[in-house]
Amino acid sequence: MTQRPDSPDAAEALRQELDRAASAAGYLLNPDVVFARGLAEGLLTNEARYGYRACPCRLASGDANRDRDIVCPCDYRDSDLLAWGSCFCGLYVSDDVARGARPLAPVPERRHRAAAQRAQAPTQRTDGLAVWRCRVCGYLCAREQPPAVCPICKAKADRFEVFSLGS
Amino acid sequence: MTQRPDSPDAAEALRQELDRAASAAGYLLNPDVVFARGLAEGLLTNEARYGYRACPCRLASGDANRDRDIVCPCDYRDSDLLAWGSCFCGLYVSDDVARGARPLAPVPERRHRAAAQRAQAPTQRTDGLAVWRCRVCGYLCAREQPPAVCPICKAKADRFEVFSLGS
Amino acid sequence: MTQRPDSPDAAEALRQELDRAASAAGYLLNPDVVFARGLAEGLLTNEARYGYRACPCRLASGDANRDRDIVCPCDYRDSDLLAWGSCFCGLYVSDDVARGARPLAPVPERRHRAAAQRAQAPTQRTDGLAVWRCRVCGYLCAREQPPAVCPICKAKADRFEVFSLGS
Repeated sequence: MTQRPDSPDAAEALRQELDRAASAAGYLLNPDVVFARGLAEGLLTNEARYGYRACPCRLASGDANRDRDIVCPCDYRDSDLLAWGSCFCGLYVSDDVARGARPLAPVPERRHRAAAQRAQAPTQRTDGLAVWRCRVCGYLCAREQPPAVCPICKAKADRFEVFSLGS
Repeated sequence: MTQRPDSPDAAEALRQELDRAASAAGYLLNPDVVFARGLAEGLLTNEARYGYRACPCRLASGDANRDRDIVCPCDYRDSDLLAWGSCFCGLYVSDDVARGARPLAPVPERRHRAAAQRAQAPTQRTDGLAVWRCRVCGYLCAREQPPAVCPICKAKADRFEVFSLGS
Repeated sequence: MTQRPDSPDAAEALRQELDRAASAAGYLLNPDVVFARGLAEGLLTNEARYGYRACPCRLASGDANRDRDIVCPCDYRDSDLLAWGSCFCGLYVSDDVARGARPLAPVPERRHRAAAQRAQAPTQRTDGLAVWRCRVCGYLCAREQPPAVCPICKAKADRFEVFSLGS
């Protein structure tokens, strides 16, 4: 008997894999295991249906190019973690939400605004993004805000500074 | 009795260490354990002989400066993974080769052409390399092509965009 | 009975966590377990006292802004690892110190000089820092010197080159 790709066992295996990858890079998976497993199951269902792990909380089009921004982890995860303490789904959470010091709250969809901005200025996609430098280890990344934790040395966001290129 | 540094046990330990490091960074070691262990043994033999882990499938000169590009992982691994599905040795493989969807194929040696280019234009080593940005986490790297998987957030290559510096 | 946050068990748990994070990123925790655990205990004591893990070998002010550079890992760790083989505390060590090939030695405090430089030229914080590129995987970082080991692909420092931006 073949195991369905989105069986509970497969979902739990994926949840654990995502949890390990998240920890290694300074992210946090939702500590509510049952909740996170349900989302992992949704990812597997979407993978079987579309061929990619589209966000389980959004309606995918089935067109890989149009859905690219919502393949998990989505393009909006890190901005939403910063602004709202979790990604759109609640699969990834901030440190205070993980500790229970902040409740999991609804996250407004920022996808359509981002798409409109890209349509208006397709060649300026990365303009205005600062390059951040970790003062501890020198890690560089280009984002709206620094990550909560440096993925390399685990220093916190307040150890990042804007890095001037070519100055 | 002293264990030889390139004993089967030491080779298997190194294989496992390389496997862990590869997974953590979004690379894949060849899933053929016996094959990969043989290459790990070759790395240990070279380390005992030369003092560094020269590629087990190439002839090292014994001069650390001249061999630097072929210390494993070699300078050509990532380009070869992209073009041929494996590194020169077959120690590192692409996702489709690991899954068995693509056969392991011979990889042409690109070392001499690269050396000739460096000799012609030694100061322009990094010219023409794009800086790639992961749209999910902001990771930056300078390579011919984006990595198959973002080493930080595990997003796939199609989530990378060319990042314009200083624009 | 509540476990004190800086109990021996909590300190050992933190030591193991720091050890895992260090290994994953190409750093090395001091292999002297008792010594490292003592420092982990100091970190937990400082966390309970100040709300952040100030360096256990320096006198913290209790003002988070003024102490930011000495929250562990401190801003000086990587430079000290390169120059002296260990951080100021000896919590992080270089490869040769870890192997016992080089003794753990006193590390002069570079904090005050760095603060003086920042005071003189607050806007030039990152000037003069080279951007280093790993020739193996393309990782970019901005530091005085390249890291001992690439945090992504584990290539050694001699595989890094200065990367010219915008040239």
